[in-house]
Amino acid sequence: MTDVTLLEGLETTRSIRRYVLEPLPEADLNRIVFAATRAPSGTNRQPFRFISLSHEGKGAEARKLLGEAFRSSWAQKCRDEGWEISLDERADSRRGRMLQAMEQYVTNFERTPAILLACFKRYRPLNHAEGASIFPACQNVLLAARALGYGGCFSGWHFQVEDELRELLGIPEDVELSLTITLGRPQGSHGPVRRRPLAELVYEDAWESSPSWAVDPPGTRFTRGGPPEKQA
Amino acid sequence: MTDVTLLEGLETTRSIRRYVLEPLPEADLNRIVFAATRAPSGTNRQPFRFISLSHEGKGAEARKLLGEAFRSSWAQKCRDEGWEISLDERADSRRGRMLQAMEQYVTNFERTPAILLACFKRYRPLNHAEGASIFPACQNVLLAARALGYGGCFSGWHFQVEDELRELLGIPEDVELSLTITLGRPQGSHGPVRRRPLAELVYEDAWESSPSWAVDPPGTRFTRGGPPEKQA
Repeated sequence: MTDVTLLEGLETTRSIRRYVLEPLPEADLNRIVFAATRAPSGTNRQPFRFISLSHEGKGAEARKLLGEAFRSSWAQKCRDEGWEISLDERADSRRGRMLQAMEQYVTNFERTPAILLACFKRYRPLNHAEGASIFPACQNVLLAARALGYGGCFSGWHFQVEDELRELLGIPEDVELSLTITLGRPQGSHGPVRRRPLAELVYEDAWESSPSWAVDPPGTRFTRGGPPEKQA
Repeated sequence: MTDVTLLEGLETTRSIRRYVLEPLPEADLNRIVFAATRAPSGTNRQPFRFISLSHEGKGAEARKLLGEAFRSSWAQKCRDEGWEISLDERADSRRGRMLQAMEQYVTNFERTPAILLACFKRYRPLNHAEGASIFPACQNVLLAARALGYGGCFSGWHFQVEDELRELLGIPEDVELSLTITLGRPQGSHGPVRRRPLAELVYEDAWESSPSWAVDPPGTRFTRGGPPEKQA
């Protein structure tokens, strides 16, 4: 376990997709899901459920379904965005490193150290605010992983094989498959957290009116985020 | 700032509704929203926006709208659930203390030290997974507050005055008002985090199949959660 403080952990946790391909001990998984389930939910209903996918039996079958879905989703995204990668670019640019990390992520998907399917047990019709009872718990997964020396990321690429996963794992119809969360010990170095300037994200008393105190600390790195520009 | 570790912070942060009624310094609000906006979002789009409500001008007007909505929502909930409270119960039972804390929360609502409206800038039609791009940031608000010695909680009771808030604060139609987050220095003592047993929330390789490692650490406190039973 690291002794990173709460505030530093919040400020520096970023999505990690390159993992050392070794199993994640059950004792650590236990601490991660325990921390996750301490997150709040409406009226403390706790509609969140986490399905861990082992490396054997149905877990291995689910990993294979997901691996195929992730590889085809990534290939489709590259086609949609017109992305091609040159060898030079791999080493030299942020985009090249991002593409390389994604290729490694989907290629090794089945061997991801730990995979959690975050599920939401529905108790009322779809509403834009319902995620307040599942995604705080998912964020706690990423943060607890960080506290234990791991890293992880969220993905929605299971949607393509949702029906197959439901059948394989016996997930009822009134349960949403909210996120796939992958976890493992980070491999290599990772860049800083990059966001828009705080003044674009924080307002006071009126939409798009930034207060004087919405300033980034020195050394903050920025990005507009969103899907990269298409190539001409 | 406290030196609580990341893991301990995740395990012990709970909803706080009783605040010392003193202003929350802007420097602390800045650190809280900075930490919030480090949370992940799909393709790093950062569709989250936080509107801080000051104690003056339109901020005070918004607080008044919310205070009325919170008081009437609480009164309605008490009627719906058939809750009445005896003086004895106030001191002696968990339910009594919960009812008392809620009464204090809504009575003092306008004087809440800090209030953030968490907003989601829509970029595609409503989908059950979209909250993955706003509620992790909201969870970071609660956790960062805890790191700085504050506490907070989530509520959806702004829904009742959403139209009035939109008009007052100039919030566009394509933006969802996801959560009201209240923050302040905790007043008095607060109980432990209570959840269902871990084995009810965590499965392996199949729905409702709990792995041997899904065990709660010693001393864990439990509750089924959900709306309390109605009185006969």
